[in-house]
Amino acid sequence: MFIVLGATGYLGSNFVKYLQKEGGNVCGLSRAESEYTNVDTLISILQSKKPDFLINAAGFTGKPNVDACELAKAECLKGNAVLPGVIREVCEDLRIPWGHVSSGCIYSGRRADGEGWTEEDEPNFSFRDGPCSFYSGTKALGEEVLAGAENCFVWRLRIPFNEEISPRNYIQKLVNYDSLLEAENSVSHLDEFVEKCVDCFEKDIEPGVYNMTNQGPVTTRQVTEWMIEEGVTDKGFKFFENEEQFMQKAAKTPRSNCVLDTSKAEKAGIGMRPVEEAMRDSMRKMAKEVMV
Amino acid sequence: MFIVLGATGYLGSNFVKYLQKEGGNVCGLSRAESEYTNVDTLISILQSKKPDFLINAAGFTGKPNVDACELAKAECLKGNAVLPGVIREVCEDLRIPWGHVSSGCIYSGRRADGEGWTEEDEPNFSFRDGPCSFYSGTKALGEEVLAGAENCFVWRLRIPFNEEISPRNYIQKLVNYDSLLEAENSVSHLDEFVEKCVDCFEKDIEPGVYNMTNQGPVTTRQVTEWMIEEGVTDKGFKFFENEEQFMQKAAKTPRSNCVLDTSKAEKAGIGMRPVEEAMRDSMRKMAKEVMV
Repeated sequence: MFIVLGATGYLGSNFVKYLQKEGGNVCGLSRAESEYTNVDTLISILQSKKPDFLINAAGFTGKPNVDACELAKAECLKGNAVLPGVIREVCEDLRIPWGHVSSGCIYSGRRADGEGWTEEDEPNFSFRDGPCSFYSGTKALGEEVLAGAENCFVWRLRIPFNEEISPRNYIQKLVNYDSLLEAENSVSHLDEFVEKCVDCFEKDIEPGVYNMTNQGPVTTRQVTEWMIEEGVTDKGFKFFENEEQFMQKAAKTPRSNCVLDTSKAEKAGIGMRPVEEAMRDSMRKMAKEVMV
Repeated sequence: MFIVLGATGYLGSNFVKYLQKEGGNVCGLSRAESEYTNVDTLISILQSKKPDFLINAAGFTGKPNVDACELAKAECLKGNAVLPGVIREVCEDLRIPWGHVSSGCIYSGRRADGEGWTEEDEPNFSFRDGPCSFYSGTKALGEEVLAGAENCFVWRLRIPFNEEISPRNYIQKLVNYDSLLEAENSVSHLDEFVEKCVDCFEKDIEPGVYNMTNQGPVTTRQVTEWMIEEGVTDKGFKFFENEEQFMQKAAKTPRSNCVLDTSKAEKAGIGMRPVEEAMRDSMRKMAKEVMV
């Protein structure tokens, strides 16, 4: 049986949906119903449910965007750095394997040698190597808290997208924004991310940290061109002149834009599709839905 | 009425003792009896007790020393960075003035101009400006969480000492250690610290951050010489050759050694005695007790 923490959130609800579709026995929990951030509460839940695997899809992301984390620092630290430590402690005690949804947003740009960031590289968009957003700082601390954890997967998601209508879907976000920032990024097809994370348990993959993004980076301009080609929108996209203008007009805290190396996941058998294939596939499905 | 959080700890118990001696109405709380780290629990405590002032003397320091924090990162973050944010939220809602025991250990050395660190200076022994210990990192985040808090005092303690027998008393620590690190530090007479913190409420001092150490720095050698002169011990103190040897033989994580500027507290009327006077006074009382 699977337990999913943060089951009503954007990520957690997709985990629950996928596991149910696969015919799995799944128990989704949200903080509204049980205070699993408390060690004793979490122990008693896990002792009674006896899950084979736990998925932590809970975290504090800030609404409508990460700027909100700058005004809710304690909550943000609790959700992104303390909670992973609580789960680690309990899962190690009860010998339950588990996975934590982390983020690639603890990096900025590419490595000095021009390559994407690997799982071995220290974060460079964190409190320890700033500047960073408070959100990214707490996500990096969360990974630090999990260093050396037993039977634990750390899955780094970046900029989720798919074909569903949701304000969190990257493709829909691009339509909604007035102006866009041209940047190069690794991105994650959400459904594929969820499937590969669950594979970690079902295919007995070696625990550890994995960059879980589609293969290859994209630029914002590329994505908007594909969107027009696939018929998602005929919007004339506008771009900020540069990052300074973006920071001045649209953001309170710096954003991570980064390229991740995905070869570790590919070698382990949980690699994701090339990014253009995954994105065009989602766009085609969205265009069809919009036109019907 | 005063509420003291962390009432069974080294700092908290001294606050409770002082307030009781002064004839004040004081309610000391420890996490063993009430989970005040939880927002709802804290709200209901404060709504029923209706304190005039709250003192947060709770925190996670690591036992026997800060090295232990490197192995309990989530607990350390929760106690030192999340809890202050929880208290801030509740005290601002209920309009209760309060004070938080922070630490000078978020600095290292002196400022570039040779002066001590003021309350205006950014920490330089923190996650954002490392290297630092995990403990210091969380204490600096705790101050960040409290930036701009209403009716809130942030009292920076450093290396507490007094005349009492306790493994946390700096003077006793120096006797107990096999070898010492020669370093320059600001230090706080614990009873004087407690008295001046309580004065903040009773003398209607302007809320904000205050370096609450005795006036002037000391070096470890100076302190050991005074100890011998005052008859606390006749121990032949041994010193590490340098910080590298100390780190190699006695410590897992770097220590903060720093000089703080105390002029803000002095101007506000909550300044503490010159360090030599305060230290010799404690030493004389200790020597007397040892000899009786």
